[in-house]
Amino acid sequence: MSKQGLPTQHDDFSQWYTDVVRHAQMADYSPVAGCMVIKPYGYALWENMQRQLDTMIKAAGVQNAYFPLFIPQSYILKEAQHVEGFAPELATVTHVGEEKLEDPLVVRPTSETIMYATFKDWIQSYRDLPLKINQWANVVRMEKRTRLFLRTTEFLWQEGHTCHATREEAETEVLRAIRMYEDFARDYMAIPGYVGKKSPSETFAGAEYTLTIECLSRDMKAIQAGTSHHLGQNFAKAFDVQFQSTENTQEFVWQTSWGVSTRLVGALIVIHGDDKGLQMPPRIAPIQVIIVPIARTEEDKALVDAKVSELQTQLEGLRVHVDTRDGMSPGAKFYEWELKGVPLKIEVGPRDIANGVVVLGRRDTGEKEQVSFADVGSKVRSTLDAVHEAMYARALAWRDEYTHTVDTYEEFKKLLEEKGGFFALHWCGDAACEASIKEETKATTRCRPLNFPQEKGTCVYCGKESEGRILFAKAY
Amino acid sequence: MSKQGLPTQHDDFSQWYTDVVRHAQMADYSPVAGCMVIKPYGYALWENMQRQLDTMIKAAGVQNAYFPLFIPQSYILKEAQHVEGFAPELATVTHVGEEKLEDPLVVRPTSETIMYATFKDWIQSYRDLPLKINQWANVVRMEKRTRLFLRTTEFLWQEGHTCHATREEAETEVLRAIRMYEDFARDYMAIPGYVGKKSPSETFAGAEYTLTIECLSRDMKAIQAGTSHHLGQNFAKAFDVQFQSTENTQEFVWQTSWGVSTRLVGALIVIHGDDKGLQMPPRIAPIQVIIVPIARTEEDKALVDAKVSELQTQLEGLRVHVDTRDGMSPGAKFYEWELKGVPLKIEVGPRDIANGVVVLGRRDTGEKEQVSFADVGSKVRSTLDAVHEAMYARALAWRDEYTHTVDTYEEFKKLLEEKGGFFALHWCGDAACEASIKEETKATTRCRPLNFPQEKGTCVYCGKESEGRILFAKAY
Repeated sequence: MSKQGLPTQHDDFSQWYTDVVRHAQMADYSPVAGCMVIKPYGYALWENMQRQLDTMIKAAGVQNAYFPLFIPQSYILKEAQHVEGFAPELATVTHVGEEKLEDPLVVRPTSETIMYATFKDWIQSYRDLPLKINQWANVVRMEKRTRLFLRTTEFLWQEGHTCHATREEAETEVLRAIRMYEDFARDYMAIPGYVGKKSPSETFAGAEYTLTIECLSRDMKAIQAGTSHHLGQNFAKAFDVQFQSTENTQEFVWQTSWGVSTRLVGALIVIHGDDKGLQMPPRIAPIQVIIVPIARTEEDKALVDAKVSELQTQLEGLRVHVDTRDGMSPGAKFYEWELKGVPLKIEVGPRDIANGVVVLGRRDTGEKEQVSFADVGSKVRSTLDAVHEAMYARALAWRDEYTHTVDTYEEFKKLLEEKGGFFALHWCGDAACEASIKEETKATTRCRPLNFPQEKGTCVYCGKESEGRILFAKAY
Repeated sequence: MSKQGLPTQHDDFSQWYTDVVRHAQMADYSPVAGCMVIKPYGYALWENMQRQLDTMIKAAGVQNAYFPLFIPQSYILKEAQHVEGFAPELATVTHVGEEKLEDPLVVRPTSETIMYATFKDWIQSYRDLPLKINQWANVVRMEKRTRLFLRTTEFLWQEGHTCHATREEAETEVLRAIRMYEDFARDYMAIPGYVGKKSPSETFAGAEYTLTIECLSRDMKAIQAGTSHHLGQNFAKAFDVQFQSTENTQEFVWQTSWGVSTRLVGALIVIHGDDKGLQMPPRIAPIQVIIVPIARTEEDKALVDAKVSELQTQLEGLRVHVDTRDGMSPGAKFYEWELKGVPLKIEVGPRDIANGVVVLGRRDTGEKEQVSFADVGSKVRSTLDAVHEAMYARALAWRDEYTHTVDTYEEFKKLLEEKGGFFALHWCGDAACEASIKEETKATTRCRPLNFPQEKGTCVYCGKESEGRILFAKAY
């Protein structure tokens, strides 16, 4: 047990995770099986993530819109692979008041079908292309085994959907979207990832191919931080989305869809957390700086309060909170803000004031230093950037340390048990081998990274020829 | 028919409304009965409204959070009046995949029940109060007769929910919330309203009383632009939300809830629209300034494009769009942007450039003036403010012109048919009189404005004593 009342990550990662989410007031289970309540501190993080990602989405010329929560059951049935992928998880509305619906409604698990049935009317000619639409919404996929943020029946997400005149243009968009997620993960969440292509068995139901960004948790499992799908003309044909080309012919559009969800919050926790609790990346942290005034006498209190006001002025524009709670020791406050992962803390006591300094502490390294009062504004800002860089570097080093290039099945199995992490293996591409490996080791293919070199080899499972390495890992 | 292809408001307001919403690309009907698709132009307006209102909500110390879409059916049944109010409109999920749910789930029509079942665990003592939570979400109330934005089965909204230690504190919050909506309507939507108390028959299901803001459309009907409810201890008792008081006793909390929805977009359209189409209030308009370059030759085009770039720099920080579409006359473009209600337009042609001016046009008055190039930045900004003020003044004058103080039932009925609008009538407070008036005239009580003077009189319907005037109107 840590001072924050958590088990260590090493002793029981799963319990550590649940405790940290609940003790840090991020979220909690709700009275509805599989659904969570996102509490203010967790929601503030999501809002900061949303705001940034929304800016990036709009900068790419994508427009926000909103489509219905409900989808006629018949729509879901139109794209064969799509229905197969989602059917067992669908929540279906059959009644309104006492009346039974003739046509049951499905609560959207994703919005391809309802959107594309509508796009059909929005698109007449090549002049209407590309069409780029994004939606921020809640979706529902019934889950039996749930974990807060990581896997919940209802979750919040954005889903981008684009239509193009050519296959190539759609390919460019699929790549743009996953690179946008990579940039967002790196520059705002301080998370490195492998960007690559999913194997056919892990591809989105209805897509030609899926690009993904895969990251590594502190318990050495892969976690998906965003996906982008090339839908080809599959849905366009199912929903008859056609356009008149420049040559006056009728063509089906080429489509993409891409999304990230509140699962990213779970990813952030399992990637950056430590035995003391959360670590919030500075650029999206709900609170960037926590100020704890330290004063025992009324006289000290007046002195310290005045100094804290000055500090707040120096830190204007940052997300700063002053912990003024009575009846709680400064130590207890520090443990709580460490648990909540606030990147920087500032202590201000009468002695500091006499010396013209404050004490600035970093959550990531635990380092404390005295900063002269006049420098606080610039020092805090530069340290926030330094914390971001350090968090990214730590996560990158972790991922690299636990990425193993292995050439035999035996070594893979041994290291998977001993160390875990990503395994760059040669695999023949046969779904049967992939399934056997999964069956025997619980590891699945995560992606074939785009930056891996072309390299022939032999499948670690069957010995047949392989076109290149793919990453296997146990996954969230 | 106007040049925008709309019927006049006078000839067919209802058709005008539907046409303007659809032609202006605000929203459209969806394949799901009663649900709409909010298109990018309509959603951009909603986002601007959200952003501003969210800032006001947070400034009042309210925190955002997120609660489940689904509510166990049994929860809805716990507050007797509440279930009576909502039962016929509830969408119920009975199946997941092929499996039947033991406990059916209701799609939230509003979140009092699921939130308060959770608040019970969040609140132990007076130290946890006040608790102030807001949620931006979609809700579902099945409607048989729907109209885009004004009445749809699914709509988007915010719902604020607060818990307090005393009745008085809750009363203060109920009033704060409705005044916040009044400020928002006036300062951002350019909409005046009557703020007052609902009659018992029009009060929210489960509330002690409801405050409302009621506005007047161009077809002389009342439209509700926000409500705020004093819930007393009704829900606290149903969901056992108690706290330990400063005197160490266990007490039930006092609660409020308050919300506005995408219906506000409908209100904006019926209040500000005219025969040419929408009029967007400048501070929330998706596009504040539309620039139409006018050039026939390639040489002119280069000249005009360069000037437009300079203009964009001058207007940085505003929401500006340049209409560069080929194959469309400037006139056709102007009609379209008038239909879409963009507050200001700027024409730039070679002759204007030679004279060192641009032509600035107002959507609200139709006035055009030449503005010297150097002054465009400041002139546009001041004119946007002037348009806001003028739109508010027009709406206020309209509301006042159509607010009638009448003392007999005969005169009321006559004026209601001839003119419509609000009628300040004496009413005894008896629900039977209210119901008879509604039955005979289709007019309902809207609210008893807080700023109406105390004034005794006799009920226009039954002649019994009345404590003061209340507003009747036909309503959306």
